[in-house]
Amino acid sequence: MEGSAQSEDKRVERSKAKVLAETYRQLALNGIGGVTIEEISRHSGIPKTTIYRHWPSRSALLVDACSRFGSAPEVPDVGSLQGDVQALLTDLADRLQTANWNSVYPSIIDAAERDPVMASMQAALHKSFMTPFEVVIERARAKGEISSQQSTDDLVAMLVGPFFYRRWFSKQKIDRSFIDAIIDLVICSTSDVG
Amino acid sequence: MEGSAQSEDKRVERSKAKVLAETYRQLALNGIGGVTIEEISRHSGIPKTTIYRHWPSRSALLVDACSRFGSAPEVPDVGSLQGDVQALLTDLADRLQTANWNSVYPSIIDAAERDPVMASMQAALHKSFMTPFEVVIERARAKGEISSQQSTDDLVAMLVGPFFYRRWFSKQKIDRSFIDAIIDLVICSTSDVG
Repeated sequence: MEGSAQSEDKRVERSKAKVLAETYRQLALNGIGGVTIEEISRHSGIPKTTIYRHWPSRSALLVDACSRFGSAPEVPDVGSLQGDVQALLTDLADRLQTANWNSVYPSIIDAAERDPVMASMQAALHKSFMTPFEVVIERARAKGEISSQQSTDDLVAMLVGPFFYRRWFSKQKIDRSFIDAIIDLVICSTSDVG
Repeated sequence: MEGSAQSEDKRVERSKAKVLAETYRQLALNGIGGVTIEEISRHSGIPKTTIYRHWPSRSALLVDACSRFGSAPEVPDVGSLQGDVQALLTDLADRLQTANWNSVYPSIIDAAERDPVMASMQAALHKSFMTPFEVVIERARAKGEISSQQSTDDLVAMLVGPFFYRRWFSKQKIDRSFIDAIIDLVICSTSDVG
């Protein structure tokens, strides 16, 4: 009996994995607006009733799939605010220009404008990606490395905003010289230690 | 005959205006993804065949509607780079927090990720909104007001990026103190004249 329960568990895991893989494929192709349970069922071969047994609604499946998007960056500790921010922005630039989620994220932002469930999922995703920035800034502040009056929220907006602007709005390259220019402006002009 | 041609023109204008008004209403409710010719026809009372006579496709109608979104800001000339940027950012903050298009724009950004027609429309919209920033920065550069090596593109990203970040990603308030913090950082630290 135990053996059969185990194989049942595995079968459930396999069918959930198939559904999630197909959801990611449709998200990458068409964004959130293009994802339907109908098409997921058709392409994954998993019956709609089974999909609805695992996720009670299309929204629930989308929230589950999108909240697994990428892992939050680790908090660096290289010994200076400038070094930590450089590590985080280099990682962000890389994710923005190569990761799968970067072409899907605008559809999450769009859905969040109207759907409260998507809005709270987007808020959680956003928080998980911004927390490392907040941690390194607060640590530097505690060490007296930051001389400016600017709040941590303001500094994060000044560091990350230009990157999002380039990826999704102006569609310009985010290269090493752009990363350095942002760090020069935001970190070097607001910190005591260069 | 001339009179009848005129009344025919007026009738066409009225029906186009009805279709555009209904398109805006659906855009504001649901973003681009929620706009269908079927629903526009149903709510405006204009037959689908007439809509397709004016706009050959759903895309063409969306491009026409979205490209009329808001007017580009005027180029200010108050005598200093700081004053000009302050005028532009105050106007931008206001538009981002009150204008109709700000909840629709993410759906344009999303569509632009996959649809080349939407991408070129978004690029044109973006350009029309950023040009005033470029004009005041280039004018200040020509007058020797800017000491930094930073390119105009970099400065625009640093000024505008944090605003877009707050409106669509972190959902934080854009108030007077935030506007002043951005100007202090980007303009005062890169210009010779304060």
